[in-house]
Amino acid sequence: MKKILLVITTYLISPLLFAQTVQVTSPDGKIIVSINDDKIPSYSITLNSEMVIADSRLGLRFKKAAELGAGFSIKHSAKASKDSTWQQPWGERKHVRDNHNELTVTFSTHRESANVFNVKFRVFNDGVGFRYEVPAQKGLDGSIEITNELTEFSINNANESTAWWIPSRGWNRYEYMYKTTPFSEVDQVHTPFTFKLNSGTHLSIHEAALVDYAGMTLKQMRGGVLKADLTPWSDGILVKKKPNFTTPWRTIQMSENAVGLLNSNLILNLNEPSKLADTSWIEPGKYVGIWWGMHINETTWGSGDKHGATTSETKRYMDFADKYGFDGVLVEGWNIGWDGDWFYNGDVFNFTKAYDDFDLKVISEHGLASGVRLIGHHETSGNVTNYRDQMADAFAMYQQHGVRQVKTGYVADGGNIKRIDDNGIVRHEWHDGQYMVNEYLHNVKEAAKYQISINTHEPIKDTGLRRTYPNWLSREGARGQEFNAWGSPPNPPEHTAILPFTRLLSGPMDFTPGIFDMGFNGLGEKANRPQTTLAKQLALYVVIYSPIQMAADLPRNYEANLPAFQFIRDVPTDWQESKAIAGEIGKFVAFARQERDGKDWFVGALTNEEARDISLSLSFLEKGKKYQAQIYRDGKEANWIDNPYEMIIEQKTVTASDLLLLPLATSGGAAIRFKALD
Amino acid sequence: MKKILLVITTYLISPLLFAQTVQVTSPDGKIIVSINDDKIPSYSITLNSEMVIADSRLGLRFKKAAELGAGFSIKHSAKASKDSTWQQPWGERKHVRDNHNELTVTFSTHRESANVFNVKFRVFNDGVGFRYEVPAQKGLDGSIEITNELTEFSINNANESTAWWIPSRGWNRYEYMYKTTPFSEVDQVHTPFTFKLNSGTHLSIHEAALVDYAGMTLKQMRGGVLKADLTPWSDGILVKKKPNFTTPWRTIQMSENAVGLLNSNLILNLNEPSKLADTSWIEPGKYVGIWWGMHINETTWGSGDKHGATTSETKRYMDFADKYGFDGVLVEGWNIGWDGDWFYNGDVFNFTKAYDDFDLKVISEHGLASGVRLIGHHETSGNVTNYRDQMADAFAMYQQHGVRQVKTGYVADGGNIKRIDDNGIVRHEWHDGQYMVNEYLHNVKEAAKYQISINTHEPIKDTGLRRTYPNWLSREGARGQEFNAWGSPPNPPEHTAILPFTRLLSGPMDFTPGIFDMGFNGLGEKANRPQTTLAKQLALYVVIYSPIQMAADLPRNYEANLPAFQFIRDVPTDWQESKAIAGEIGKFVAFARQERDGKDWFVGALTNEEARDISLSLSFLEKGKKYQAQIYRDGKEANWIDNPYEMIIEQKTVTASDLLLLPLATSGGAAIRFKALD
Repeated sequence: MKKILLVITTYLISPLLFAQTVQVTSPDGKIIVSINDDKIPSYSITLNSEMVIADSRLGLRFKKAAELGAGFSIKHSAKASKDSTWQQPWGERKHVRDNHNELTVTFSTHRESANVFNVKFRVFNDGVGFRYEVPAQKGLDGSIEITNELTEFSINNANESTAWWIPSRGWNRYEYMYKTTPFSEVDQVHTPFTFKLNSGTHLSIHEAALVDYAGMTLKQMRGGVLKADLTPWSDGILVKKKPNFTTPWRTIQMSENAVGLLNSNLILNLNEPSKLADTSWIEPGKYVGIWWGMHINETTWGSGDKHGATTSETKRYMDFADKYGFDGVLVEGWNIGWDGDWFYNGDVFNFTKAYDDFDLKVISEHGLASGVRLIGHHETSGNVTNYRDQMADAFAMYQQHGVRQVKTGYVADGGNIKRIDDNGIVRHEWHDGQYMVNEYLHNVKEAAKYQISINTHEPIKDTGLRRTYPNWLSREGARGQEFNAWGSPPNPPEHTAILPFTRLLSGPMDFTPGIFDMGFNGLGEKANRPQTTLAKQLALYVVIYSPIQMAADLPRNYEANLPAFQFIRDVPTDWQESKAIAGEIGKFVAFARQERDGKDWFVGALTNEEARDISLSLSFLEKGKKYQAQIYRDGKEANWIDNPYEMIIEQKTVTASDLLLLPLATSGGAAIRFKALD
Repeated sequence: MKKILLVITTYLISPLLFAQTVQVTSPDGKIIVSINDDKIPSYSITLNSEMVIADSRLGLRFKKAAELGAGFSIKHSAKASKDSTWQQPWGERKHVRDNHNELTVTFSTHRESANVFNVKFRVFNDGVGFRYEVPAQKGLDGSIEITNELTEFSINNANESTAWWIPSRGWNRYEYMYKTTPFSEVDQVHTPFTFKLNSGTHLSIHEAALVDYAGMTLKQMRGGVLKADLTPWSDGILVKKKPNFTTPWRTIQMSENAVGLLNSNLILNLNEPSKLADTSWIEPGKYVGIWWGMHINETTWGSGDKHGATTSETKRYMDFADKYGFDGVLVEGWNIGWDGDWFYNGDVFNFTKAYDDFDLKVISEHGLASGVRLIGHHETSGNVTNYRDQMADAFAMYQQHGVRQVKTGYVADGGNIKRIDDNGIVRHEWHDGQYMVNEYLHNVKEAAKYQISINTHEPIKDTGLRRTYPNWLSREGARGQEFNAWGSPPNPPEHTAILPFTRLLSGPMDFTPGIFDMGFNGLGEKANRPQTTLAKQLALYVVIYSPIQMAADLPRNYEANLPAFQFIRDVPTDWQESKAIAGEIGKFVAFARQERDGKDWFVGALTNEEARDISLSLSFLEKGKKYQAQIYRDGKEANWIDNPYEMIIEQKTVTASDLLLLPLATSGGAAIRFKALD
């Protein structure tokens, strides 16, 4: 186990050729990355002496310059190390340790132009990140157009691996059911892409700090060899850069077991520190909203008799929020544009003009009087030029009315984001191409000028940018609760047992849990409904991390079951520490989280369609201290299909040395508050 | 069942909007294509009143012009019909009937530029073809760059379909094992893409007359909706055109059963007539060659002690060819370049300079003395600039030595065809992008100048261009026999029961059948070997159509089994008529073919890993006429795993009213010559 950086030079038989290898290890020595230049620059990775990534290609191709890659050799390499701790203004943990070894490898070749580039590797105990750093040079000046990123991830013994994935470059951005398949069935997939080797080693490939670059998806080119498959611009170019550029970090999170993936800080550690000096106006919290009623067809986004976003209805929600301790009320469908065929014609939206039955001033003042903020909403339906034209006015108006948070929406088929280019031509972009990567971030930066935080729906995937822009509070980017209202089919019981190991590795998700009435279409297996027990709905508040959490159901459904609702009222959304304590992908998962700047701990545990008992060590609690465990768990006869509501709420006094046995029903769960005593 | 062309105008509720529908049917009325302009131009198809293709989008997007598609409406439409018969200089049948109804639909919109295009539909009894025709117009002048072809194929009830496919945009061009999966597992696939609806209807999507355009692959965008996924240039543009262009035909072959697909002439009928006035120098035929020995490591392509392509060895093959009636001898590895790392460095090949132990003049004269021609070989290893630079000289030299046929090779990973562009930069193209589509055809056109025919390996897929350029005799484009020498795994027993319904729908394949010694690595399930019986190797000569057929094994293996070899000597490669008579995809298939300008018929039948009895009606024979059936079939105890050689050769006198029962062993087959008596 080599714990120091090595430079090994291997002489081949040919007297004129030689290949070099340089290495860098993780601080604990378990991960070794080897970089070599035998014909083409490449890297390989071992974990505990197991080859996990075999020799894998590195390189970039351009429209107007020769390839940075084949024929280049290692000119020199430089090492560095870091071990520091930084603080999150909000997050799943307050203090994050960044402990890594770094190796910057300079590749060069003998020609006059486009002849040098660096690859920087950072190796943590929980995985590896690397990125290309391309200095300004002859041949790579002016406008640089990348036509191919050659990066490969050559998975060793992929044959015997199981993978969890959603397809990329399809119609529905990221909102697919996850597939669980042999690795061989993987074709073109989104990241985070998570898979389990036969040895039990779990890996997840993703990227960090996706800024001004195309999103990376993966394509299996031959057995086990995944290639970076960057999402193109509408003109076919993958990435457009100016001289002296770096790429996002390509990341490989690794763990000896499934749970280990969940405790990784690698993505955040590879992002830049906050660019916002003052973050005091950024507010995590819980909210309710005028939303679910539209999804179950009680009300409409558009105007008319069933219009959901009326002054009186919003006031009613604000009073409910005030009574039960929520911070905000989201309102969708208040602004002009929702009548008619908005899905195919997003330029109908006016972001500052309300329907006649919605009085923004009256509503916001009504809420603020009791400390409840209106949460704004901007549905673009993917027409980003129309949104950009109105964005400043829209944020200014919201700020004027005390709005601190806006949920954005980009509902449009994949590849059908509309924009008007400089020549007046309508272009259609992907949600995860460079144009939209920039557009989403532009929105977040603009919002910051008005002290507004953003919750992006139909977003670009998360790559940890919340560290750099902490007003990017949350986002969607996977199938959320609304699929249980009308999805065909709704989210299956395994869905939320897969999300933590895939989507959630990238960052917070606004899943909008907490549906109490599952019978709006009837119960049973066939109905459109949440395919969970009630206790599992509560568990989601702990399992699915987001600094903002919605109580998604209608007020009447919460008031009909106040004992269960108590957990939603009690659970925080900002944490001092988070620990995944049990789990297998697609089967079950359990998290313990401690309230930010508080003493209480919370646990959420859930299972797929199989009932199971989870035995929970409480060793995460402070030693010697007593806690009142307020347990919300499935009743003895509970099952998701026809008895989802049976729930036991019980109290126990426990300490860190106790074991807690949680019997979970089919698609069941448990939610626990450990209230610190004395 | 509407047999005439209709124009239906549907008025929607909105008083200002209206959508039009126009229709065209097949000559037999069974297929109806409807084209409408409701928001976006689209088409749908019914077969026998079953909706097979639901409303599917049409359109094109450009780099510098607005979309031809959304917002366009039907301006007018024009109909035409055709029923004629044309003749193939060689082929699976001499006379081809072209009977179709045509509808040209003109779409236009109210703007000043890029405002009009046509879609031309041709509906045959065996399927539908359509193509875009874009006239010169303002906004589409100068250089036109296509960035998206919006064509969709929205398969109705795809959920319940089974699909047979190979992935596209991967490393190995087209040489994958075929997958048999539910339609839902289809992601990014090559054409011909064949699938079977739950109703039993079989469909195959492909294209015809792929000239100066990118190859079309398919991507499943949402459940059942396949979108045209054109293979891009290295700079990301999909297609580069001049004003007034047409696209290749997008084709949908349809049949009520599997066998029906095999008798379709649709692809050929959608190609242009021959551009070659004189085709007398184009020679179908059978050949042997210095080839298999390299694949089983008896000899080498490179020079040295084991060099395969020597003067003496070639003379030996020529004598063998002469003795047993073969037309030519292919020689690979005779020219400079095979020593060292040619796979990654194709510019090492010299196409006119032989190794010292190979005397082209002596060899070709030796062969011509007995009427045996040398068959040339040009392996480019995908460096097409190097090949283009030498092409004229290389063909001229071959012509001078009586060579009439050249096998070309483009062995390079997918996306790694190398070319030097005008700025001296090395570019990497796909085998099926527009650049290579043009390059392959350039090769065929250049060859014609020297009266040379081409057999392309690692080719662009076939789209029927043999009709227009009859010197494009055959090609590879799927896993061939060589995978049985070293493929991992070798071709499974089902492989050749899938090929006729997929790859072979596009045109002839140089599969190189006829391996007699299957024990070169031992027998059994695990060895690299042909996973067939000997009788199945014979059946391949009839099942897998190609105007040139190789007897691929070593001379000594044929001379060790002359009775079985007799079928290969007898079977022709050019046909008067061909009839698929039985088959289910991946299970079994049987063809009957009549010798061109002769009276004999030949039958080939084969099965997958399951033994089965096939009962064959001989109704294809001339009524009242007697034939001697010379039958080569599996012996009673034959099976592919450990008893592949047991074969019964028997003669029977039969007539058209007889039934023939063929018992096929596991991965077995039968080959029959029906010799016309009197």
